Formats: sequence, C-alpha cells, structure tokens
Amino acid sequence: MTSESGSSLAKLLISCADRPGLVASLAQLLAGHGANILSSDQHTDREQGQFFQRLVFDLSALSTDRGTLERAIQEVAERFDMTVDLFFCQSPGGAPLKKKVALFVSKYDHCLYDLLLRQRAGELNCEIPIIISNHPDLAPVAEQFGIDYYTFPKTAEKKALVEREELELLKEKKIDLVVLARYMQILSDQFLSSFSGHVINIHHSFLPAFIGGRPYHQAHSRGVKLIGATAHYATPDLDEGPIIEQDVVRCSHRDDVEDLVRKGRDLEKVVLARAVRAHLEDRVLSLGNKTVVFD
Amino acid sequence: MTSESGSSLAKLLISCADRPGLVASLAQLLAGHGANILSSDQHTDREQGQFFQRLVFDLSALSTDRGTLERAIQEVAERFDMTVDLFFCQSPGGAPLKKKVALFVSKYDHCLYDLLLRQRAGELNCEIPIIISNHPDLAPVAEQFGIDYYTFPKTAEKKALVEREELELLKEKKIDLVVLARYMQILSDQFLSSFSGHVINIHHSFLPAFIGGRPYHQAHSRGVKLIGATAHYATPDLDEGPIIEQDVVRCSHRDDVEDLVRKGRDLEKVVLARAVRAHLEDRVLSLGNKTVVFD
Amino acid sequence: MTSESGSSLAKLLISCADRPGLVASLAQLLAGHGANILSSDQHTDREQGQFFQRLVFDLSALSTDRGTLERAIQEVAERFDMTVDLFFCQSPGGAPLKKKVALFVSKYDHCLYDLLLRQRAGELNCEIPIIISNHPDLAPVAEQFGIDYYTFPKTAEKKALVEREELELLKEKKIDLVVLARYMQILSDQFLSSFSGHVINIHHSFLPAFIGGRPYHQAHSRGVKLIGATAHYATPDLDEGPIIEQDVVRCSHRDDVEDLVRKGRDLEKVVLARAVRAHLEDRVLSLGNKTVVFD
Amino acid sequence: MTSESGSSLAKLLISCADRPGLVASLAQLLAGHGANILSSDQHTDREQGQFFQRLVFDLSALSTDRGTLERAIQEVAERFDMTVDLFFCQSPGGAPLKKKVALFVSKYDHCLYDLLLRQRAGELNCEIPIIISNHPDLAPVAEQFGIDYYTFPKTAEKKALVEREELELLKEKKIDLVVLARYMQILSDQFLSSFSGHVINIHHSFLPAFIGGRPYHQAHSRGVKLIGATAHYATPDLDEGPIIEQDVVRCSHRDDVEDLVRKGRDLEKVVLARAVRAHLEDRVLSLGNKTVVFD
Repeated sequence: MTSESGSSLAKLLISCADRPGLVASLAQLLAGHGANILSSDQHTDREQGQFFQRLVFDLSALSTDRGTLERAIQEVAERFDMTVDLFFCQSPGGAPLKKKVALFVSKYDHCLYDLLLRQRAGELNCEIPIIISNHPDLAPVAEQFGIDYYTFPKTAEKKALVEREELELLKEKKIDLVVLARYMQILSDQFLSSFSGHVINIHHSFLPAFIGGRPYHQAHSRGVKLIGATAHYATPDLDEGPIIEQDVVRCSHRDDVEDLVRKGRDLEKVVLARAVRAHLEDRVLSLGNKTVVFD
Repeated sequence: MTSESGSSLAKLLISCADRPGLVASLAQLLAGHGANILSSDQHTDREQGQFFQRLVFDLSALSTDRGTLERAIQEVAERFDMTVDLFFCQSPGGAPLKKKVALFVSKYDHCLYDLLLRQRAGELNCEIPIIISNHPDLAPVAEQFGIDYYTFPKTAEKKALVEREELELLKEKKIDLVVLARYMQILSDQFLSSFSGHVINIHHSFLPAFIGGRPYHQAHSRGVKLIGATAHYATPDLDEGPIIEQDVVRCSHRDDVEDLVRKGRDLEKVVLARAVRAHLEDRVLSLGNKTVVFD
Repeated sequence: MTSESGSSLAKLLISCADRPGLVASLAQLLAGHGANILSSDQHTDREQGQFFQRLVFDLSALSTDRGTLERAIQEVAERFDMTVDLFFCQSPGGAPLKKKVALFVSKYDHCLYDLLLRQRAGELNCEIPIIISNHPDLAPVAEQFGIDYYTFPKTAEKKALVEREELELLKEKKIDLVVLARYMQILSDQFLSSFSGHVINIHHSFLPAFIGGRPYHQAHSRGVKLIGATAHYATPDLDEGPIIEQDVVRCSHRDDVEDLVRKGRDLEKVVLARAVRAHLEDRVLSLGNKTVVFD
Repeated sequence: MTSESGSSLAKLLISCADRPGLVASLAQLLAGHGANILSSDQHTDREQGQFFQRLVFDLSALSTDRGTLERAIQEVAERFDMTVDLFFCQSPGGAPLKKKVALFVSKYDHCLYDLLLRQRAGELNCEIPIIISNHPDLAPVAEQFGIDYYTFPKTAEKKALVEREELELLKEKKIDLVVLARYMQILSDQFLSSFSGHVINIHHSFLPAFIGGRPYHQAHSRGVKLIGATAHYATPDLDEGPIIEQDVVRCSHRDDVEDLVRKGRDLEKVVLARAVRAHLEDRVLSLGNKTVVFD
C-alpha cells in the first residue's frame, strides 16, 4: 500500500451504471497497452445500480504512450457513460505529481499542527503551499513550517467579496484540495459549488448526531457514552455532505464539556488525517451523499 | 468486583444536592455501626450541583442490627434531603436476594438468548421468572430455559387493557426490572411511569442519531462509517431516556442493510447485557436524562 | 456482500508467484466464457513476491459449460504455477452447496451456542452435521439444535486411536471444516496435518502474548490493560498457526481473573465467529504463518 | 475531573495492607481538620491483600493548618503502615505547584511534538524545563517551544559517566518525572533505580507481545491483525515494568512494515500522553509490576 506513490504508477477511478463486462473490459484495455494492473478494487451498489472501481497500474512496460492510453480510456468511458479520473504519479518528464492542498483554519491549532507534521513525515503525499485563515493567530505556525499564511478577515457584508479573493488565490496556486481544519466559518454555496468534491471538513460529532453548533455541549447535555468526529466533503447542505471517515471515543459522567473537548481533539486529528490521506491516495469516490472508500 | 455478591454485603446508592461533609458523614455513620466500607465511588455533577455516591460495605461485624442501621441511614437521608437506595445481598435469614427480571420480546431471539445464557453462566445476578411477548414465536426458547412465557397480543383498541394485565402480572411476580430485549411495541406513558427507572430498552442506533423506526435503514442511506446501539431507561419520551451504555462497530460501503442488521445484532447483545448488568449491580444512578454509571 | 451466496455464483481463490499480467489474464479468461466478474480483490505481498486474488463471478450467462470453464482455469493455473480453489454456490442441478462443519467442544458452551445460533440466523453459510466432544456435558445443547453429538473420551494411551476414529467420522460426514470452539485438548500433528488449513481454533489471548495455558491468569499477573482473543488455523506448532482474526477489550485493575474470563467470553465468541464466517465465504488465503483476509 | 487542579485542592495517595476501617479512618481524619473530601477512589487487590486509595479534598475551610494536617496524616500512616503521598495544588503562598518533567528523545519527533503541544494546550498540568537527547537533531523543536535542549552523546565507554551528568542535571532542575518519548537508548539499572517509579517509557508493541527490538517488524512477520503500544514505568527489567496504559489499532495483510510504523505513531502518541497525564494527575499507584490507575 505504501508504495503506491511509486514513480511509474497511474491510478484510475471509475463510476458508472452497473452492467456486465465492466471489470473485464478495463482489464483488457490496460493489458492491451502493456499497463500491468497491480491492484483492482471495485464495488457495486445494488440499490442504486452503480459500479465503482479503482485500478492501480504500472506504466513502465507501456507498449504505447500516455496520450494513446488516455484516449483509449476516454473512448471506453464514453461508450459505457463512465465518470473517469486518471492520475499519474509522475509527469512524463519524471517529476513527482503531488496534489496541492490549502488548509483553512481559524484559531484552533491541533488539526493544523497534526496535518503539517504528517505531511512532513511523509504520511500525506501532497504539497501544502498555503494556509488561509480568518484570523492572524496561527501565522507563527505557518512560519515554522515555511508556508505562506493569508489572513482574510470576514464580515457579513464582505463575505462574498472575500470568498472571491480566496477562490482566486486557490486558482492561482493551483489548489486541488481544500481542508477545513476546524475552520469556524460557513462557506457559501457558491464557494462550495465551485470546489465541489474537493473540500473536506471535520465536524466534531458523530454525524448525524449533533448537527450544527457546539456539538460537545450538545453531547454533554444528552449524556452520551461516546463522542465522535466526522470527516466529510463539505456541500451547501451543512453537515450533510458525504461522510468519508468517522470514529468515536468513550466518555463517562466524569467528563465535563472541557474533557469532551480535550478527548475530541484527538479524534478530530486522526479522523481528519485519515480522510485527507484517503482522498490524496485517490481512494474515495462519491455518489449522492455517500462515499465508497477503498482500503 | 466479582465478589460484590458476597453474602454479608450491602450497597447504598445516594443522590442529593452537593454540600461539604457528605462523604465523611456517611463514612462515619457506617463505621459507627461496625459496617466496614469495602468500596466507595462518588461523583459530583458541578453544573447541576448534584452529588452521587455508591457504597459497598460488609455487615459481618455489625455492632448493631440491620433495622438500627437502616433507621440511622434514613435519618441522615432526611437531614441532607438525600434520595437513598439500600440493597442487601442476603435476607436476614441468609437467603440470597436477587432482583427479579421480566424480559419483553417480540420475534427476534438474539438478545433473548444472550441474556438467558449470561444469566445461566452467572454473569447476571438475577432471577428471570417470566418472558412476556406480543407473539408466540419465542415460546420454545423460554421452554428450553424453563421460564414461563406469556403471550399478550396487542391491538390498538386493546392496548390499555393488555398493559394493565401485564402490569398486574409484573406485580404478582414481584418484578424489579423490565428489559425490552428488542420488544417491537411502544409502551404507553402510563406503563412506563408506573415502572419508572426500571425499564431498560435497547435501541439499535447510536442515539441521538437515527431516532425512531428502521435505524439501520436510516444509517445505510446516510452512509455512516460506524453503526451503534444504545441501552437506555425507557421513558415516555421515546428514545430520549437516560443512556446507560452505547457502543459502535465499523461498517463500510460494502455493507448493505442486511449486513448492518447482522453486525448490529452483536452490538445490541453486548450493549444491552452491559447495561442490565450495571443496573443489577446497583451501579447506575440517574438525574434528568443522564446517568452516572460507576465502574 | 450479503448476496454472495446467490445461486449462480462461483468464487475463485488464487495464489502464485507475482508476475505481470495475472489480473488481466484471469479477467479475460472469465469474460471469454461469458462469466461476469462481480468482484475482484487482490493482494501482492512484496516481501515474499506472492500474488493473491479472490474473484466472484456470475455464471448465469455462461457461454460454455462448467466443465469447460473448470478445464480452462486449470490450464491457466498450470501455466502460471498457481494454487487455485474454485467454489460453486450451487450444484449443476441447482442444489445449494454449503460447507460442512464439525464443531469440537469440551465443557464451555458459549462459543458453541454462539456458532449454532448464528448458523440458524443465516449468518454462517454452512451445515453443522456433527458436534464432537471429549465430554458428554454439552449433548443437551446439540439435541436442542437437532445435531448429532459424539463423545470421544480421551486418555493419553488411547489418544492416537481415538483421533483415528474422529478422522473417520469426519471423512464419513464429508466435513470441510473443523472448528475448535474452546476444545480443551491438543490435537496431534497427524490429525492436524491430515486436515491442514481446515481447522480453526480460538485462543483466549492476543497472540503471541500469553501462548500456552491459562492465558487469563497470565494476563492478570502481568497487569495488562487490554485482553484479547485470536482465531487461527491450528497447526502442529501450538498457537503459532496463521492468524485469521483478533480483537481486544479494555480491562483494569478492578478486574480479577474471573472478570477477565467473563469479558473474554464475549471476545472469543465474536472473534471465532468472524474467522469462521470469513473462511466459509472463501475470503481467507494463507501463506506460511500469515493470512490474507479479503473484506 | 478537569477542575482537580483548582487552587485550594490537595490529593492523597495511599497504599497499605488491607484491613477493616481504612476508608472511614481517613474520612474522619480529613473531616476532623475541616478538609472537605471531593472525591475518593479506592481499590482492594484481594490476591495480594493490598489496599489503594486516592482522595481529593478541598483545604479552603481547613480548621487547622497544613502542617498540622500533614502531621496527622503521617501519624495515621505510621499506625497502619501505609505508604502515603500528599500533593498540594498550590504552595501556602498561593503559587501553583506543577510537576517538572524532562523529556528524553532521540530522532523521532512525533511523541515530542505531541507532548509539547498538549502541555501548551493545557492538557498536561506540568512544566517541561528540559529536553535531553543523545542526538542534536531535535534541538530546533525545543527552540520553537522555548525549552532548553541538552545533547548527551552516548558511547559504550562513556555511558556511566554521561548518565551521572544527566542525573545531576535532573537534580539541579528538580525534575519529578522523566518521559522517554521514543528514546532509543537503554538506561542503566543505576539510573532507573535512582528515579524509580518516575520514568515513563513508551514501547511500540502490545506488551508482553514483541518484547525487545523492532517490534513492528516482529508484528509484521507474525501476521497479527492488531498492533499495539504500551506505556509503562521503566524498570531495570527491560519492557517488564508496570503497565500504565495500552491500546491497539487494526491492521491487515495490506499493511507493510512502513504502514505499521505509521499507524503505530498515532498509537504511541495517545498511549504515552494518557499515561503521562494519569501520572501528572496522581492517579497511578503501583505494586510489584502492576498498576492501579484511577479514572
């Protein structure tokens, strides 16, 4: 699993209406071009009649060239009405192709530090060129890691304007993924639509329990025995986007709200990191408000 | 912990408004009568200013008699406006005093078997004299374990009447605790009020997520990555009663509703059994819609 | 996942030295015979250079017949020096083909009840024609479920003889899998060799911690904070066989050995059941003392 | 639980041979001096006949003074042959009394960052005046957090000498607790004896499985389905000290050694942090190679 970032690899994500012959036709196509399939995961959602596949293959013995292969895949995609995403681990010239991630933060630093340290340790195969915040507080952390930090103060009147500036910055920096690492602002529908499927948020509850604000307070007054965290793609429907990862930790009557906040921080970090990692490894496909996350 | 059912033991559960001196005054009272405290757990809910304590003590060197001790405890209880529950593990004559439990079931047998086998294995310190159902299907299981099985078919018109009969039966059999072991009927407010704090239900979701019917279907359409089960005291507010125990298990896109039902069965069994065990060991106190569960 | 026991399905398990083209060649072979691949999992162990695959395919639109397909698979298997196992969910005549399981027990009944109830609930796709024991104690359980119960008392002198009788019985009943459901006897190397890869044992510790006898006592004296259970294929090297499934549960200083035994029973049941289920669904391949368990 | 660091609080840890009257005698003693007991946990190890208690009490209405109270406690301690530890949250003058912690590290930074960030976030009630290492690599991390970093290169010949220097530094800085945060050196018996019960180590396996070096490699070759981490007091018997906390995470055939190392880092961090936190809150008592950890 670790070596999927190997130099000559490519990954193909497919989603389409289910029908016989899909697995074989793609296997044949790749074999026919000399691409050696290293790994193939697929899933059929029977209720929705939808087929999902993730293929990892090695291009080092390719009998044609990338362009020819891409065109062949595109042709099959059109024939079967497939949604297709193809990712190369290296450019044709041999440079590693890493996704570019923008972190959005407010004042909490735990998810920020966690993601930065994991990226530096090689756990997250990406670049993190920018950190965006509505507050200046975490600029020193960005500095420690040598990352540009942009403060966009937000007011009700200027929200639309500021979001346009943020979108321009994301475009300029060629950002592939926005991670809301405990970003305490609601993004507009326009923003989310223009980055649809590429914004991951961490919500500090086991969704759909405790939707909305102050979930640890809600959990405390309900007297639950476990608290949770949920990483999901952010969509205009707040807290309703496709769930990528969730986890829980045990609590008890001994825990006051502050204890839940403390225990929750550990959860938020690992749940968000797992979701971001899965996305960066091209393991997540979504359909409606559900995801397929291949191991 | 195992030996708390020892012969000469007694347990005291206390709940009252918090004030200085509570721990010491009870310790002194018991010591003064020759009762040796084996274990003391307490908790103060600061928000609500409420004090909770559970004491286990040994009566074998009692310098007075049970009646005197009971009166002394009652006196302190009145002085401090305490809610007090005192449980003896044996009658004065030496017979073990076990709680009497009625199991309510419908057609699912997994929780029923689970509780019956645990009781027989000595995990649940109780007697189970009766099983009540709205269907005859599980009568053979009752028979295997030599337990009386009562079928009370329910119709909308006769519900009130039938519940009165059930309550009479519970009274006649001196039932201390009703366990709804996947009982697929909603009990009336009257029924629940007359057995308040002594009816444990298992809900097949991680409450408060997926309140109401068909929670596994709800979980499946929401695309959660964990499913849960919740044991709680049943109150007139459906699925809103004080939570005693919860747990979750991981699921994925591979799991259809039937898989969730299957995985959920294992959860329901252990979560319900842990809650029933905690109640039988007098470890649960409740205040409003929250519980204190001492380890 | 649930519907893999569908009528017209077949499953193919493959293990061989890794080389390019394996995934494509099998996909092509099946497609060429009109077999529609529903699911394909594969794994490459890079250290050992070994390739593993599990294919589920639908035969309902087969353009040839089963015999032809089997011969074609055999041919590919020989060409690539593959170990191949092919399972059909139905006989050509339409009868369901279920694995036959023999349960070995001694005096503990928790795993026995658990497996029998799961089988009856449809969780375990198998028949359980016989239960074998070295004690008569659990015969009444077998009777409740209508299963033949065989008592083979074991003494040091007669062990070899008795095991031969057991093996004959297993052969006569066409047993595919032996499950040691807390069977408190050590089987000889001869026995295990003649059923190699088809005997699943549950060990009541998190192997390789606490190998050997009385693991809960060992765990208690070491003061661990978690106890575990391990389901593995039994091999002549006691407690060293390939691990199929493991899990743990939290314990504390409050738990004495009896508490560990009680908590452990729940673990043993679910861990053994998951392992048996994975084996029955043909999800387990092993190499040396390790397993690949496809989800 | 959070507010136990409140200003006027004190904590008392007691361990002695079990006998009747212990709970009451301490409760009376404290009440007699006007100390209000806020929380009392106790445990009796029946096998070893040992009694353990942790008391938290409020001194704000003390009817005597600290010195008198201390002498009274000392007197009871002598009478019952108790081991007693008394901790005040504030000096008589009102300054907070925090434990002083030295972190020992080598080249891995994940546990180091984790502890420093938790301390800064207020999760760990301590001061961290120094970081000691056998390598200079992590000095920049120390600098970011404004902590003195000492490099003590170790060679086989100079080990004893260097340890003496380290001990002097610990003495000079009045260190209460040494945390080996993935410190890749074995400390001598002399060192550990002179700091007995005050050195916490994190071992990257579920002890007693995979004692010794390279536990992730050992786990990978054994093919386990869970990996673990164990925080324990370091004693001259390597990896045999009293366990404070353990946890595990699921792994599979898909995980190579690098994946185990990555997953293990998350475990090591939380397990070590929980153990350090429990120690700092005076929740851990030990007897032989076992611990009592009060919640």
